Amino acid sequence: MDIQKITKDFKALQRQLHALNHASGILSYDAQTVAPAASDEARGETLGTISKMQYELLINDQVKDMLQTLTEQEANIDLQTFREAQELQRDYKNSTCIPKEEFVEYIILTNKATSVWRHAKNNNDFEVFRPYLEELVKTNIRFASYRDSSKPPYDVLLDDFEPGMTQLYLSEYFKQLRDELVPLVREIGQAVGPATDWLNKSFGVSKQAELSDRVMALMGVDKKRCILGQTEHPFTEGFNKWDVRITTHYHEDNLLSSLYSVIHEAGHALYELGIADELQFGRLAGGVSMGIHESQSRLYENMLGRSLPFAQSLLPMLKEGFPEVFASISSYQLYQALNAAKPSLIRVEADELTYSMHIMVRFELEKALFDGSLLVKDLPGAWRELYQSYLGVEVPDDRRGVLQDIHWSGGSFGYFPSYSVGSAYAAQIYDKMAEDIDVEGSLRNGNFAPINGWLKQAIHRHGGMLKPEALLVSATGKPFDVSHYTGYLTSKYKELYNF
Amino acid sequence: MDIQKITKDFKALQRQLHALNHASGILSYDAQTVAPAASDEARGETLGTISKMQYELLINDQVKDMLQTLTEQEANIDLQTFREAQELQRDYKNSTCIPKEEFVEYIILTNKATSVWRHAKNNNDFEVFRPYLEELVKTNIRFASYRDSSKPPYDVLLDDFEPGMTQLYLSEYFKQLRDELVPLVREIGQAVGPATDWLNKSFGVSKQAELSDRVMALMGVDKKRCILGQTEHPFTEGFNKWDVRITTHYHEDNLLSSLYSVIHEAGHALYELGIADELQFGRLAGGVSMGIHESQSRLYENMLGRSLPFAQSLLPMLKEGFPEVFASISSYQLYQALNAAKPSLIRVEADELTYSMHIMVRFELEKALFDGSLLVKDLPGAWRELYQSYLGVEVPDDRRGVLQDIHWSGGSFGYFPSYSVGSAYAAQIYDKMAEDIDVEGSLRNGNFAPINGWLKQAIHRHGGMLKPEALLVSATGKPFDVSHYTGYLTSKYKELYNF
Repeated sequence: MDIQKITKDFKALQRQLHALNHASGILSYDAQTVAPAASDEARGETLGTISKMQYELLINDQVKDMLQTLTEQEANIDLQTFREAQELQRDYKNSTCIPKEEFVEYIILTNKATSVWRHAKNNNDFEVFRPYLEELVKTNIRFASYRDSSKPPYDVLLDDFEPGMTQLYLSEYFKQLRDELVPLVREIGQAVGPATDWLNKSFGVSKQAELSDRVMALMGVDKKRCILGQTEHPFTEGFNKWDVRITTHYHEDNLLSSLYSVIHEAGHALYELGIADELQFGRLAGGVSMGIHESQSRLYENMLGRSLPFAQSLLPMLKEGFPEVFASISSYQLYQALNAAKPSLIRVEADELTYSMHIMVRFELEKALFDGSLLVKDLPGAWRELYQSYLGVEVPDDRRGVLQDIHWSGGSFGYFPSYSVGSAYAAQIYDKMAEDIDVEGSLRNGNFAPINGWLKQAIHRHGGMLKPEALLVSATGKPFDVSHYTGYLTSKYKELYNF
Repeated sequence: MDIQKITKDFKALQRQLHALNHASGILSYDAQTVAPAASDEARGETLGTISKMQYELLINDQVKDMLQTLTEQEANIDLQTFREAQELQRDYKNSTCIPKEEFVEYIILTNKATSVWRHAKNNNDFEVFRPYLEELVKTNIRFASYRDSSKPPYDVLLDDFEPGMTQLYLSEYFKQLRDELVPLVREIGQAVGPATDWLNKSFGVSKQAELSDRVMALMGVDKKRCILGQTEHPFTEGFNKWDVRITTHYHEDNLLSSLYSVIHEAGHALYELGIADELQFGRLAGGVSMGIHESQSRLYENMLGRSLPFAQSLLPMLKEGFPEVFASISSYQLYQALNAAKPSLIRVEADELTYSMHIMVRFELEKALFDGSLLVKDLPGAWRELYQSYLGVEVPDDRRGVLQDIHWSGGSFGYFPSYSVGSAYAAQIYDKMAEDIDVEGSLRNGNFAPINGWLKQAIHRHGGMLKPEALLVSATGKPFDVSHYTGYLTSKYKELYNF
């Protein structure tokens, strides 16, 4: 066995997989930004062919043996190669554990379910979606058992988005959130918040686009390696550290919505832009997990982006771009407006404080669906109860209730918790960063270099080398601890609302 | 031998090749339109990997045998499959006839030569480029002999851009152009042309972009399948009939330049958009040759686009978009301005009449370089002589002379003639079309449907099924005859200049 030869072949395989990923990624980006409307079907053919080529590259006995050998040779190969082999072996298992015909049937099911969900949401008709959701849950339980029958199905799904995460752990996590935050959320639901009606103006798209450019520059996003596009829904796609794309959607009647989606996506982008050179083109050249990725976007969007010193840096740009709106506004008024909180119905419109309550509802319902303690037919009622209990709001219809999110229709169960966990990671990372450098001073001076430098060193450069928990320990010196998050929210909102 | 199985594998191979072509095409389009500046090198890696995958897909003994079998089974397979096999076998031979190391060396040479050419042009210094050009000519002579040592090297190169074309044929072709057009060109060089100074205005880019949209709609370009982008240099890229991209470059000081580049590229696009469904995703799903492709772009740009009835349709749009410039202009004044002719130095700025003279110079010089009757060191002088003799212009420096075009630095010899031949094809096609339908009436009514329909039927739908000469015979009922072109130019310009 020539381990050097195997390693060389393994690197070549990763480059090939990367090239095909890069190609299909650009095809998708192009599709969402500029491609002609009728081009979808033919592009689907190409994407299908590429995906088949990816499958054939990865899934064959030669690669299987290669991965087996490499993962058994931890002592004789470098750590990066070992981790790459580990992750590709995980991909290998995920791609092969489900019988092909069942997988094809499932793809057809999710496509159909997504289109039925769209119809159901538009018509506020949960009943038409119900049988699809039942089938999706059933199939995911079966698939989870194919992947690892020794674990509860929901743990298998959670592990897919956030390696190492379990329902037991999350139950504890959300219990602490519930205990510490629900009273605050309910109290704020009764309080009179700061005035924000002065923001109800119209904001021209080209002025907003100029502002986006300036804010990205302020944040230290390298224009030579990252561009901003416009799409229906904002997203980030990183192909490698020299080519990251973020997008936003401008709403003339809502400046903060597009501005903060740019800051959020720029946080994702800075992560991808900061991954070490030596990881590029390989399996580890990307964020390590959904949760860690969200930690970076939410750190920039919330902990940094909605802070008072950032409001101080931002305000002059707003005054220049929209003098008629911001001329007489103070930084503290802006800071208040950036953090207006109110329990509400819709997750994607939720503020920083109440956001995790929306996630908690979904976590509890998913867990109950997968351990059999809740039936799909009882889901809308359970949803209404939990919204009443955690957020104190009455859900008037399923469109604004259980039907609001697309995720389940595409078979994504166990995805939601990573949004909340990301914020909690972010709070812990922030606290450590604030011990090491003057974060508030940097923000106030409009100088993101120390912040970006610290995060690159602690988080970004590692890409997929360290698993989430290990990364957090390496960055902050201690295991995941949700009290950073609850403490941050409690003190911020108590101050803002004078409790 | 199971011919059905072989045919099926062959179709699958073509789909895979198409998918990789599609992917690298979109990567290139993206690169030229939106990609971040620093992304080039990593994209180069991906394109390199994809190109290696393409090579490995096509170049192996299994495919070699498959192509051999299919091309020997003309009687037992359908014509499309036979032609696909023929063309892929041609690709196969072109890819394998040159020893790999020599090919790699050549790629390095062309990259270096292109960068040296850029420097040479900027500094008006032919001498620094000379040794590279000598090496390029030498290498192309050697490569031509690898491909087919039974033919003169220049014939091998011509055949690459325009299958079937030879230097003997082109010598006759250009002799007729020279005899019939040079006197006219020289006479026009002395004449006072129509006034065009009223066009020396500034034209806002967004107004020009609106005009492009309207003109593409007028021409019947399907917006759902074809988009217009902006790039440094205009081009057309067709991925399949549902996704064609054209680009332009807006010059504030030159409305006609970008407008007619849009019309030119839209002509290319209509060809790609009209190729038959059954050819899609296969080797024949594209224009059959450079010359036929140019015939379509030039037919729309010149024979149709610079005609009096088109000027009549166009003028109201111009009056709406730029009233301050066009308010008092008549269609005939516009028609005159669209066809102002003047012998000049630069090919890409040449008018319809003098354009082929520029090509004739290049053809004669290429022919002489490849038959050994001209040395590279004597090229600048020969260039000056021919420009004096055919166009009656004095070449003041090599920057505006022999160094003006990029083609030779990239090793493209035998490419230029297809530009001129394309115009001559177009004139012959136009004459046949005008026998069958009321072309002028359609243009005057702003209704391109009969024109597009006729061209789709006669030319577009065939894609690569018929070779250029056969296509022309099929479309016009007779072999290629340059007198359509000389006759068209002579009568048009004699009328315009009152000779």
